[in-house]
Amino acid sequence: MITFLSDYGSRDEYVGVCHGVIERIAPGTLVIDVTHGIPPCDVRAGALALRRALPYLPSGAVHLAVVDPGVGTQRRPLAIRCADGAKFVGPDNGLLWLACADSGGVESAVDLSVSTYALDRVSNTFQGRDLFAPVAARLALDAAVEDAGQPIDPGLLTKLELSAAAVRSGQLHTQVLTVDSFGNLQLDATPDQLEQIGLAAEPRIGIAIGGNRRAAAHGRTFADVAQGEPVVYVDSTGAVAIAINGGSAASILGAAAGAAIVLGRWD
Amino acid sequence: MITFLSDYGSRDEYVGVCHGVIERIAPGTLVIDVTHGIPPCDVRAGALALRRALPYLPSGAVHLAVVDPGVGTQRRPLAIRCADGAKFVGPDNGLLWLACADSGGVESAVDLSVSTYALDRVSNTFQGRDLFAPVAARLALDAAVEDAGQPIDPGLLTKLELSAAAVRSGQLHTQVLTVDSFGNLQLDATPDQLEQIGLAAEPRIGIAIGGNRRAAAHGRTFADVAQGEPVVYVDSTGAVAIAINGGSAASILGAAAGAAIVLGRWD
Amino acid sequence: MITFLSDYGSRDEYVGVCHGVIERIAPGTLVIDVTHGIPPCDVRAGALALRRALPYLPSGAVHLAVVDPGVGTQRRPLAIRCADGAKFVGPDNGLLWLACADSGGVESAVDLSVSTYALDRVSNTFQGRDLFAPVAARLALDAAVEDAGQPIDPGLLTKLELSAAAVRSGQLHTQVLTVDSFGNLQLDATPDQLEQIGLAAEPRIGIAIGGNRRAAAHGRTFADVAQGEPVVYVDSTGAVAIAINGGSAASILGAAAGAAIVLGRWD
Repeated sequence: MITFLSDYGSRDEYVGVCHGVIERIAPGTLVIDVTHGIPPCDVRAGALALRRALPYLPSGAVHLAVVDPGVGTQRRPLAIRCADGAKFVGPDNGLLWLACADSGGVESAVDLSVSTYALDRVSNTFQGRDLFAPVAARLALDAAVEDAGQPIDPGLLTKLELSAAAVRSGQLHTQVLTVDSFGNLQLDATPDQLEQIGLAAEPRIGIAIGGNRRAAAHGRTFADVAQGEPVVYVDSTGAVAIAINGGSAASILGAAAGAAIVLGRWD
Repeated sequence: MITFLSDYGSRDEYVGVCHGVIERIAPGTLVIDVTHGIPPCDVRAGALALRRALPYLPSGAVHLAVVDPGVGTQRRPLAIRCADGAKFVGPDNGLLWLACADSGGVESAVDLSVSTYALDRVSNTFQGRDLFAPVAARLALDAAVEDAGQPIDPGLLTKLELSAAAVRSGQLHTQVLTVDSFGNLQLDATPDQLEQIGLAAEPRIGIAIGGNRRAAAHGRTFADVAQGEPVVYVDSTGAVAIAINGGSAASILGAAAGAAIVLGRWD
Repeated sequence: MITFLSDYGSRDEYVGVCHGVIERIAPGTLVIDVTHGIPPCDVRAGALALRRALPYLPSGAVHLAVVDPGVGTQRRPLAIRCADGAKFVGPDNGLLWLACADSGGVESAVDLSVSTYALDRVSNTFQGRDLFAPVAARLALDAAVEDAGQPIDPGLLTKLELSAAAVRSGQLHTQVLTVDSFGNLQLDATPDQLEQIGLAAEPRIGIAIGGNRRAAAHGRTFADVAQGEPVVYVDSTGAVAIAINGGSAASILGAAAGAAIVLGRWD
């Protein structure tokens, strides 16, 4: 089976066309749409979503992922087999990096620039349709990654660097990794780091965004606080996060992906 | 098979992750996505959409529904078997109430707070993934509702109260039940009530919203009136509704779900 | 199998309900969602999307397409069989016209106004559910188009006229056919026409929209130009198109579907 993540959105026929291409090559193959709502060209958001989804997707699946601002340029199109058997197809721009690391690392990688599995004509701007989907379909039919293109050194693949929260002067300096559609802010911080600054058991935590500082409850879930109130919690991926019960923390606190937030004692 | 309705939206990987969880537990199970576009945390909108969809979904399906502002709190997670054989999985907040009533009523209900069908770790904020989807997958594999959790008295389930239009002084006082993506306004009124106030055969009907009063044609469908004109009609669910041909009645008339509208004679 | 395109959007349960109806009539039938993001009631956008997708969809499929502002009026509901074996189900408003032409032309067409394949009750406003989806499901079960309704003369079907770019005074006068979700502008012009005005090999092309004139690079793909810069290229369907690398050409250049754009020499 195949899982499919992209920034193609739901307005155009792009996703449906890729499903059609897969069905023509590998009839009856199950395709799970992970999401197609990655913000256009946001490789980092795509890489994070793929990593979050991965543990819950069928093992041994072919993961097709396309967020590809460099489509048609010299950036390499890739097929990858990881140590745990997972396969990935997509551009070499960091999109696959985090998921490959979580799959035991890259065991074998090929450059799809010349691939016998591509459609007869490969356009410069829609390689999801012309190259990546056909290759994923062949891999789902049990073709070997090695047969899909030219071998390349896994050490040369494009990496994705993420920020990491840091403890300084008893405060936790974090950045927003992801904002979801509810407006919840996932931080690059871990519960361990909250403990390091002595906030693991505190009922209130100070959050500073830009020049503004306010108190948030330290809770387990959204409805641990009153409607409209902020809560710091450990989210479903194990990261420290900030939400507003019944509202969008992103809008109300004015924070987007990449925003710097400082967590500290409130008193 | 499973049907799946939520407020997870199309931007994040939440829906795809739940599909992955189902496929891992019950490979090959068909999942029909009813919709994931319920406005965030709008339990009433979710309950209405599930009720409208139900007669057209395969009988005997497991209906997974997650609009769950109280996720992780004391609100009970539920699995239900109804008199007509339909099964439901979701939170005990009224979301399932209307659909269960239309399925012959609740025959058996269990509290999933402790369920052997849950994933090994159940997060506080994404129980669609960790609890509801796994339970739905097990029920689709023919597990019994009674084996999914602890029995509870169906009489204690959370109800959902809906408004109902009322005839007063020869006018029909209604509220907007639902606004769809075309901007059509579904009212809590029935064709019988239009007849009660003598408007069943009238070609024009007065509609008053807030302080504004205007005439609408009484028609059968959108294009019975000119572009940009309002029409009162019986919609595809049998409810009285207001649309604007080629436009959004919600925007143009300034009415959202819950808005009060009075229908009466226009002369 | 069935492909399904509509303007039903992702907010309401309309798409899921049609899937339910198909599954009830033809259990196990694969349904590929081409897109449901066609702008509401935009028949032309729907027709273009269906035509673009068609070459990549499984041959012999039943294509269900519903963008139907005239639902419930005298406009005819149709089932069509084309010369290459493709079948289409949808309203007679031009939506199916381009795709039928690309399928070898209409071989047989029937009016579904009275169809034994419809659901027992056909509403005036949701015929996707009550008529089109059930007919598509029956055709997927190998029912004959001729058995679905009353025969009609293919010559009487509603046509869809598209604009076509024209060369005048050494310039190419075009219109925007489609804007996709990335904001890329697909024109009604062909690479041959660019060649006619001597721009096939020019590195820069002048583009005039409204009163504004500016230079664009003539490239192969988005990232052939710097971030924020416009590029004229041949898109994945073989049409001349304008994009802005990393941005929306539609927003930045202020052009929507139907907008007039003049391409010419820049010097």
